[in-house]
Amino acid sequence: MKKLKRSARLVEMTQYLLHRPHHLIPLTTFADRYGAAKSSISEDLSIIKEVFEEEGMGDLLTMAGAAGGVKFIPKAGQEQAEEFINHLCSMLSDSSRILPGGYLYMSDMLGLPNLMNEAGKLFATVFAHADIDVIMTVETKGIPLAYATGAQLNLPVVLVRRDHKVTEGSAVSINYVSGSHKSLHTMTLSKRALKPNAKVLIVDDFMKAGGTIQGMVDLLAEFNATVAGVGVLVESGEIDTEQKLLEDYVSLATLTVVDAKEKEISVQPGNYFSRLQRR
Amino acid sequence: MKKLKRSARLVEMTQYLLHRPHHLIPLTTFADRYGAAKSSISEDLSIIKEVFEEEGMGDLLTMAGAAGGVKFIPKAGQEQAEEFINHLCSMLSDSSRILPGGYLYMSDMLGLPNLMNEAGKLFATVFAHADIDVIMTVETKGIPLAYATGAQLNLPVVLVRRDHKVTEGSAVSINYVSGSHKSLHTMTLSKRALKPNAKVLIVDDFMKAGGTIQGMVDLLAEFNATVAGVGVLVESGEIDTEQKLLEDYVSLATLTVVDAKEKEISVQPGNYFSRLQRR
Repeated sequence: MKKLKRSARLVEMTQYLLHRPHHLIPLTTFADRYGAAKSSISEDLSIIKEVFEEEGMGDLLTMAGAAGGVKFIPKAGQEQAEEFINHLCSMLSDSSRILPGGYLYMSDMLGLPNLMNEAGKLFATVFAHADIDVIMTVETKGIPLAYATGAQLNLPVVLVRRDHKVTEGSAVSINYVSGSHKSLHTMTLSKRALKPNAKVLIVDDFMKAGGTIQGMVDLLAEFNATVAGVGVLVESGEIDTEQKLLEDYVSLATLTVVDAKEKEISVQPGNYFSRLQRR
Repeated sequence: MKKLKRSARLVEMTQYLLHRPHHLIPLTTFADRYGAAKSSISEDLSIIKEVFEEEGMGDLLTMAGAAGGVKFIPKAGQEQAEEFINHLCSMLSDSSRILPGGYLYMSDMLGLPNLMNEAGKLFATVFAHADIDVIMTVETKGIPLAYATGAQLNLPVVLVRRDHKVTEGSAVSINYVSGSHKSLHTMTLSKRALKPNAKVLIVDDFMKAGGTIQGMVDLLAEFNATVAGVGVLVESGEIDTEQKLLEDYVSLATLTVVDAKEKEISVQPGNYFSRLQRR
């Protein structure tokens, strides 16, 4: 790359960092890339750091020493997170989402890549410093959320399937109970998908009692893997706390009322902010 | 937002544009945001434009007039695209991917959010100026690719399901023939998912004869929607051209040999570059 002026360097470094969240980048990488002195690179980075932190884009960590460098940690600011969660709640409150049986149509929302990326950034904020090797979800609707989270945390995504596909190779299957009818389902994960002792962040679009997520937790045990955290976009608050199978999870929105007869939906922010404070 | 210096403004504008591909942003948005004169904003944008174009990140289009502004069009440069496609081919060539029956294990690759985002950028490059309303894929493995493409093109994603879920509301189903055994399958799409006359870009992870994609094309006809393009990550080249159901598609890699007995895989770049030139 040709030698760049400071102004051009700032643009280039900003995009370079944004595309590489949670990567440790040695200062020499930038110095070589732009034919600049390390001291100039340091000054550039302090400008970028200030803007990133003031605009609620995330932290720019500087590690000193021979193995040092900078690392961009995407984090949603308080204001940005509140705005997003309010937006999410207001989208969910639209009564035309109510389907027969009191189910909620969310596929249009889950189909917006930018909305999913924003939600992923919130999960990446809560779990920014957690020790995680991989993100896991079960097909189908949690997938975009899992990838959005994985992209921000620089982690791979592992997909649990409802049935065993030939393209997954040999697999481990379990049965689990979920849904309001307590029905029995199967989930399966390729044997190649997880390394032993992997630390796994489970992400899904919706949680009621938590049967499906408990199924994933049970599946992890078969791989000697452990749960590093659980994040759900929307949780149902229409269920007694006693009936909840999981206690420790992060949710962005809570459905408190879905009344199919009166065509009424009530939504409030999930436990995101209280979980964020605990960390 | 407080008044920013040029250096800080360049960092902020870069991230603002990168997060809003294919959005028209009026200059006044920036002028108001940073308390700067439009002429300063124009100078900033020309610095950003130069870096974006030189580094193969994409184009920054300037539209003059009252309804004017700037629009960031993500595009992979020639060098970046070649590097990515070679990387993809070399990952695919690993003979430990071969599964019984000559199937290929790709879930680890499809599980890398960054790899999917790069592939999505290539599709966004080919279809940068196509008239598209929505991206469509069929569950499950094409989903991350569809979202990566949708994020870059600022378009929603619509998901075809294998069977009709209660959370999709009323749906339209079709039968289609696919796979080496010419077996009959069903696919279904929520009636709410597509507006009439929608122009649809179909994205999938793998294509052999193209039966599944032809199924999606047939499903689109039921919605009076039309195909604006087809993009696949990997195509099988082990099939006669005559047997291919589709002619007009973009592929990033082609499998020429998958020999389960000899544990041999041959991969070459797909038709990406030739399709790119046609547009």
